[in-house]
Amino acid sequence: MDFSSKLLENAVYEMSQLPGIGKRTALRLVLHLLKQPDQRTEGLATSLLDLKEKIQFCSNCHNISDTVLCEICANTKRDSSLVCVVEDIRDVMAIENTGQFRGTYHVLGGKISPMEGVGPQDLTINSLVTKVKKGEIKELIFALSSTMEGDTTNFYIYKQISGLGVSTSTIARGIAVGDELEYADEVTLGRSILNRVPFEGSLKSN
Amino acid sequence: MDFSSKLLENAVYEMSQLPGIGKRTALRLVLHLLKQPDQRTEGLATSLLDLKEKIQFCSNCHNISDTVLCEICANTKRDSSLVCVVEDIRDVMAIENTGQFRGTYHVLGGKISPMEGVGPQDLTINSLVTKVKKGEIKELIFALSSTMEGDTTNFYIYKQISGLGVSTSTIARGIAVGDELEYADEVTLGRSILNRVPFEGSLKSN
Repeated sequence: MDFSSKLLENAVYEMSQLPGIGKRTALRLVLHLLKQPDQRTEGLATSLLDLKEKIQFCSNCHNISDTVLCEICANTKRDSSLVCVVEDIRDVMAIENTGQFRGTYHVLGGKISPMEGVGPQDLTINSLVTKVKKGEIKELIFALSSTMEGDTTNFYIYKQISGLGVSTSTIARGIAVGDELEYADEVTLGRSILNRVPFEGSLKSN
Repeated sequence: MDFSSKLLENAVYEMSQLPGIGKRTALRLVLHLLKQPDQRTEGLATSLLDLKEKIQFCSNCHNISDTVLCEICANTKRDSSLVCVVEDIRDVMAIENTGQFRGTYHVLGGKISPMEGVGPQDLTINSLVTKVKKGEIKELIFALSSTMEGDTTNFYIYKQISGLGVSTSTIARGIAVGDELEYADEVTLGRSILNRVPFEGSLKSN
């Protein structure tokens, strides 16, 4: 693209570095900001700088937090012996939105992926193992995405903590509520039959 | 969404004010920035603030510019008596990319749209009319989008300048190069037959 202004070119370049934002979209966004009052741009710029500068991660669960201990970990009504292991903060938000979970979390910060150069030392696995060794945790629920990387990470953690007297589980995989059986993939449908639950037990979740 | 951090919530809110960016996408973008080195966020924030603070608009054609007169208007090789009237700077960039136009531009900054509360006084029409009255312009090429608002704007300008001895034209509408006739809409196809050009003349553009 042929920009008539270096300032515009810079802004478009920086914007287009965001994931999923191409040059054209970046230009559209930047021109939109130009047309808006100054406060719009200032609000965006300062909120991003503030976030980057002041953000903390909970010292216990590694969730994003404005304080040393996040709201969930600091909440005495939550069961800190029941820990749900997730990849990132978006998973915490998704599970919190269900309102079904009264335990706490442990945010790994990703999953083991040799292809992307992410090893166990890049994640918060050590801090999880330490917590388990202290005997603070009764049950770990693995809630990672069901990909090869997710399974590898689950298994790696499982090997580290087995024999330490903590019980482990994974979230149920199956046909989504409201989905039609005929459109489900074979692996999911197969697993959902193998891992069937007693009919009376299935009623409680509603 | 239930954010564990006010800082995060602010950043996501500001990001989601951009057009076409929903809350989920905003969260994804903000979390991406959080994982990147500090320079990424600083680069984005300062480039946007710089742009908003220092940007100028060309005093002649109202194109975005880092200087009082934009590169195109300042270029003595460009024909300043041939002026292409466009809606916004993206149109200038699109036409410049063709490399086919050696005249100059006039950027209106939008089109007349009563529905969106944009009247002639919100655009740079007066400055265009002034230029025409000074006798600086021989031909105006209307290159606005072919919508009702675009046609209204064309006609409004045309009424203001008719009788001032400037010739006017609009860019050709027709079937796009490489398009199949059978998929063209009736209006475009109809116009392209009415406005047919001599076969020999059609060769020169390639």
